[in-house]
Amino acid sequence: MSKVVAIVGATGAVGQEFLNVLEKRNFPIKDLKLLASSRSVGKKLKFKDTEIPVEELKESSFHNVEIALFSAGSSISKTYAASAVSLGAIVIDNSSAFRMEEDVPLVVPEINPEDIKTHKGIIANPNCSTIIMLMAIYPIYKLYPIKKIIVSTYQAASGAGAAAMKELELQARAFLNNEPIPTKVLPYPLAFNLFSHNSSIDIESGYNQEEIKMIKETKKILHNPNIHISPTCIRVSTFRAHAESITLELEVSANIEEIKNSYKNFSGVQILDRPEINYFPMPLEVSGKDDVYIGRIRYDYEDKEKKVLHLFAVGDQLLKGAALNAVQIAELLL
Amino acid sequence: MSKVVAIVGATGAVGQEFLNVLEKRNFPIKDLKLLASSRSVGKKLKFKDTEIPVEELKESSFHNVEIALFSAGSSISKTYAASAVSLGAIVIDNSSAFRMEEDVPLVVPEINPEDIKTHKGIIANPNCSTIIMLMAIYPIYKLYPIKKIIVSTYQAASGAGAAAMKELELQARAFLNNEPIPTKVLPYPLAFNLFSHNSSIDIESGYNQEEIKMIKETKKILHNPNIHISPTCIRVSTFRAHAESITLELEVSANIEEIKNSYKNFSGVQILDRPEINYFPMPLEVSGKDDVYIGRIRYDYEDKEKKVLHLFAVGDQLLKGAALNAVQIAELLL
Repeated sequence: MSKVVAIVGATGAVGQEFLNVLEKRNFPIKDLKLLASSRSVGKKLKFKDTEIPVEELKESSFHNVEIALFSAGSSISKTYAASAVSLGAIVIDNSSAFRMEEDVPLVVPEINPEDIKTHKGIIANPNCSTIIMLMAIYPIYKLYPIKKIIVSTYQAASGAGAAAMKELELQARAFLNNEPIPTKVLPYPLAFNLFSHNSSIDIESGYNQEEIKMIKETKKILHNPNIHISPTCIRVSTFRAHAESITLELEVSANIEEIKNSYKNFSGVQILDRPEINYFPMPLEVSGKDDVYIGRIRYDYEDKEKKVLHLFAVGDQLLKGAALNAVQIAELLL
Repeated sequence: MSKVVAIVGATGAVGQEFLNVLEKRNFPIKDLKLLASSRSVGKKLKFKDTEIPVEELKESSFHNVEIALFSAGSSISKTYAASAVSLGAIVIDNSSAFRMEEDVPLVVPEINPEDIKTHKGIIANPNCSTIIMLMAIYPIYKLYPIKKIIVSTYQAASGAGAAAMKELELQARAFLNNEPIPTKVLPYPLAFNLFSHNSSIDIESGYNQEEIKMIKETKKILHNPNIHISPTCIRVSTFRAHAESITLELEVSANIEEIKNSYKNFSGVQILDRPEINYFPMPLEVSGKDDVYIGRIRYDYEDKEKKVLHLFAVGDQLLKGAALNAVQIAELLL
């Protein structure tokens, strides 16, 4: 059952990973269309042993397309997803455009695969920080009721796109050479620095859009409106893997041995917890890896009831945080 | 009342800042002795209009010294502080050697200045992450009883010393040139990466020594054994300012306007909270600044009782986190 697949935003950071992931997972492809803005027309991208020319994205681009992987930002998704659906494609959208719409499933395949059944043409891929957090804690969530998640993120430049990754490199070179730091893509210098996530802030609450996504998307994916999420999202000087410091407040006492065992039956997460040599997940080592890595799993130092847990998670933002999760959704459709 | 002052570890990252801070604050100095290991003998360091030769640290180095500022690590403090005290000096120690000893005051001058009165020759300077966190939250602590502090840190290379700062630079250059990453000082690559704080881990609890310092020192400085601290300490790719994502669980409802007003009567903290332009404290901007900067002060998104607050703090690790706080302690002695 090979499919005709289109990639919208093929020349972007996530678009490139779509190509890598489809190839690596040997996704059954009858035909692959690479779509991007007119600026990219003329470029060719490598897929398996072929070079595929990039075509200009138009409303008519989706004739015969069966699965359309979108990753070109919310406004492109809003403009073109309906055309794709009306021409018969199923859209898997990596933007935030449709995530909170009631008739759009928001899916992490290891967590809520059954939700895709209700789709009406569009399936949304969750926010990268949300996916990585939920992958990291889901086996714990299945074991014990979680009241509250407090999370501080250490997010990579890739979440702001390929141009931001390039700018981080240019900023670092400029910094080391005592030259002015370029900030054309990023709002502030990120090299050897960090800043509060550069999504706009809801002035009334004081939360940025990235944090609000983590709150709302988590409730939707878990079908649990009562779970309480307190996120602080920070962009740091790394290229493509997000890290998250996560605190969980449980309704009941936890048992860490039981928790570690429970991850054995959950695919997509590796435990890397070597306190004796101070070796835990790090962005540089997790970059390019499919799995989310967790470590520093521990009881709260002062909570004698063992109802509070802490852990540290790292996942590749472009893979499980974006392209891999979307391709896994596509695999559920086969 | 000019003093004879000695700096132990004068050639280190904090030692250099001792010289800068003493000069900038015009600390009344009769004579300044610069002490370091024999390897540094022959070097001269600039202080005001003079160049002062570095002398080898010996037990006899403290004759006539009235104030000895130690920042050469715990083992040097343990070896030489007693000699300094027996020769009549008051030791202000930046290491963790004596911080938790009962007859050693642990002092942040804006918070518990009266504690220095009980000293018996040694006054300890707290851990840098502890100082920055307590400065950031102290006006809130004075307004409302705090039950619990949950903190995730974003710590700079400077906390591991001048050699670690240099290595971060060398690592970044190597990374950008696709060369092998040097890790002689730091345990793992830090450039474009991050890792769990490189202090040893207490295997039973799973907490590293940096986190345990934050827990124990906070209780001592605040004279509050019941305040609950849950820290996660992470080293990030920045040079000299620590950042901290802080969540406070209060006994009562908070009022952010009242909180912001309360900082006006507290010296050493600046509020930088500009949600409309997404501008908050950043390590590169706070580097070299005496004050701790805080921003993103907000109620919890989902806590209707307003008993949970979040904020983000950044402070120069070498200044308020180390040299400045120690010199402020010395000023209390004048």
